[in-house]
Amino acid sequence: MRTKAAVATAAGKPLEIMDVNLDGPRAGEVLIEVKATGICHTDEFTLSGADPEGLFPAILGHEGAGVVMEVGEGVTSLKPGDHVIPLYTPECRECEYCLNPKTNLCQSIRTTQGAGKMPDGTSRFTTLDGEEILHYMGCSTFSNHTVLPEIALAKVREDAPFDKICYIGCGVTTGVGAVINTAKVEIGSRAIVFGLGGIGLNVIQGLRLAGADQIVGVDLNNSKKEMAERFGMTDFVNPTEVGEDLVPYLVNLTKGGADYTFDATGNVNVMRTALESAHKGWGESIIIGVAPAGAEISTRPFQLVTGRSWRGTAFGGARGRTDVPKIVDWYMEGKIEIDPMITHTMGLDQINEGFDLMHKGESIRSVVLY
Amino acid sequence: MRTKAAVATAAGKPLEIMDVNLDGPRAGEVLIEVKATGICHTDEFTLSGADPEGLFPAILGHEGAGVVMEVGEGVTSLKPGDHVIPLYTPECRECEYCLNPKTNLCQSIRTTQGAGKMPDGTSRFTTLDGEEILHYMGCSTFSNHTVLPEIALAKVREDAPFDKICYIGCGVTTGVGAVINTAKVEIGSRAIVFGLGGIGLNVIQGLRLAGADQIVGVDLNNSKKEMAERFGMTDFVNPTEVGEDLVPYLVNLTKGGADYTFDATGNVNVMRTALESAHKGWGESIIIGVAPAGAEISTRPFQLVTGRSWRGTAFGGARGRTDVPKIVDWYMEGKIEIDPMITHTMGLDQINEGFDLMHKGESIRSVVLY
Ligand SMILES: [Zn+2]
Ligand SMILES: [Zn+2]
Ligand SMILES: [Zn+2]
Ligand SMILES: [Zn+2]
Repeated sequence: MRTKAAVATAAGKPLEIMDVNLDGPRAGEVLIEVKATGICHTDEFTLSGADPEGLFPAILGHEGAGVVMEVGEGVTSLKPGDHVIPLYTPECRECEYCLNPKTNLCQSIRTTQGAGKMPDGTSRFTTLDGEEILHYMGCSTFSNHTVLPEIALAKVREDAPFDKICYIGCGVTTGVGAVINTAKVEIGSRAIVFGLGGIGLNVIQGLRLAGADQIVGVDLNNSKKEMAERFGMTDFVNPTEVGEDLVPYLVNLTKGGADYTFDATGNVNVMRTALESAHKGWGESIIIGVAPAGAEISTRPFQLVTGRSWRGTAFGGARGRTDVPKIVDWYMEGKIEIDPMITHTMGLDQINEGFDLMHKGESIRSVVLY
Repeated sequence: MRTKAAVATAAGKPLEIMDVNLDGPRAGEVLIEVKATGICHTDEFTLSGADPEGLFPAILGHEGAGVVMEVGEGVTSLKPGDHVIPLYTPECRECEYCLNPKTNLCQSIRTTQGAGKMPDGTSRFTTLDGEEILHYMGCSTFSNHTVLPEIALAKVREDAPFDKICYIGCGVTTGVGAVINTAKVEIGSRAIVFGLGGIGLNVIQGLRLAGADQIVGVDLNNSKKEMAERFGMTDFVNPTEVGEDLVPYLVNLTKGGADYTFDATGNVNVMRTALESAHKGWGESIIIGVAPAGAEISTRPFQLVTGRSWRGTAFGGARGRTDVPKIVDWYMEGKIEIDPMITHTMGLDQINEGFDLMHKGESIRSVVLY
């Protein structure tokens, strides 16, 4: 079939809106119509050329929601008409990783997904001239139609609005899941969140949902305060306005250090501050942000020997087919909010404006509506 | 009273054997006769002057076993004749730390202990000329008699031999506890232990006790292999004999990385190797060794984001009054071995020879018998 997509032709260039050819689903695959997709920093990371593993030409986008149109041979868990959210971290429920309750990092299609291909090693996308276009993170939601493996689709309730739940495909789950699945924050905990962008806001609302008593937000930009308070932040700290070293200030503010700290900045110096602001004896620090290639974290081992632990999370520790439908339920039940974070919507033709808004820091999340 | 002690008069000097004065126990304190004490690397760290927090003159030693002689006012859990092991990490069962099941780092007497004093801020030791001699790690087991707070003594069974169970006061508990309390290793796990000195051997027997399937030992010295195998090591790796990078070699040997890795070297480069040899998705790396002052660990945050966690342990995560008596039981029941690790014994007059044996790498543990 023919569909319309925003194609990343090369690193550093704007996306090109064009018609492309899309092959139908093969065995174990599903064709979906994408109804809405968020524009995420990870798309920008790849498009900019900063991602050393970025491949071109490709159809980016990994934060979508849509409807099943056609299923390939052997697909049993989905049928045409089902509402779905694509999963860049699949859940095959059969691999060594899926069978280990300590991780969500299903490895069943990792190699082909990393190479921009479907599990059989080929792409479903071609230009009208017949040249291959690669998939991206197994999703390619910057196309009005796309093909995914069955194991990379979460089936969700049909009354949930696509233009909001698409954000659950990445940012919401990453932030809320870091709290619920990775840190397993207990009621009454004290926490610090570094970076009050979209991920940070979702960590904050995850902490509220988990019953944290104190939720400290740290950001260099005072304009982030109001929105963060709306999502549950109890204390705001701007490091440039603290007249002393940040770590002792935060340790004092949290009565000895936070039970949990979260880095949502991707800055390795902030990651160190986050670790060292965690409570002696039991504080856990969780890295969510993606650091620049080659950047390293460091600290004195004494920080760990005295009881802090340093961990990380990917896709919020969520097993997508199992957990994403629950997060959609939480949104529909009002347990978490998404609407105020979708600050801009646009058509596919305006997708490059969404990237511009992100560069300028004017959006929390821009969503493309098909 | 007057007793005989090995006094550290200044950094870098041999211990001086001399008679010293010892005041009786005050409220909440207990006088014990030390029957045996191990000589630990931490004593050497302080005696050498490398420990920036080392204080002199002091009576070192923190790995002892003995008998209660007299109890101070208000002491209820111990009476004369009880067999005890001194605890450099006390267990008050009342502080914020003791009441948090996630940590063993009782803070109730931390400040005075760090200053070489009893909890009331004074020392019980003086020279025969009346000059103050400091306590060390709250224990000072290099004195034939010493005074400790009640909360820093584990009461143990009376049929256990002092010359063996003294080692439970530090090395055994540190190594075995890192496996059982900190890592909570599950049956069937794969593990790697870096450094096959006394701590490493105790980690290995902890892993055997926990039912680990694969126990890899890493050491630069092939002569460590035989003893480590005796304690349960299944695979030995000498990094200088591996014809490739050590991390991929170890990842391959453990079929994807170890479920748990332990650093018992104190070398920050080894700590990084230990983290990166842990399994993607769920591997945990535990730092046991004490690094030189100022040394830092580092890695790419990607290592954590892909599911490894970096932790540390002190005194094996053990709550001394509760856990040390259990470890004594395990020894008496044959669940763990200590005897082959006590390679040398000597009288207090020969204690400096024990330090020499440590320097030369000829001992696993030297024990002073009073
Ligand atoms: Zn994303
Ligand atoms: Zn899987
Ligand atoms: Zn020791
Ligand atoms: Zn305590």
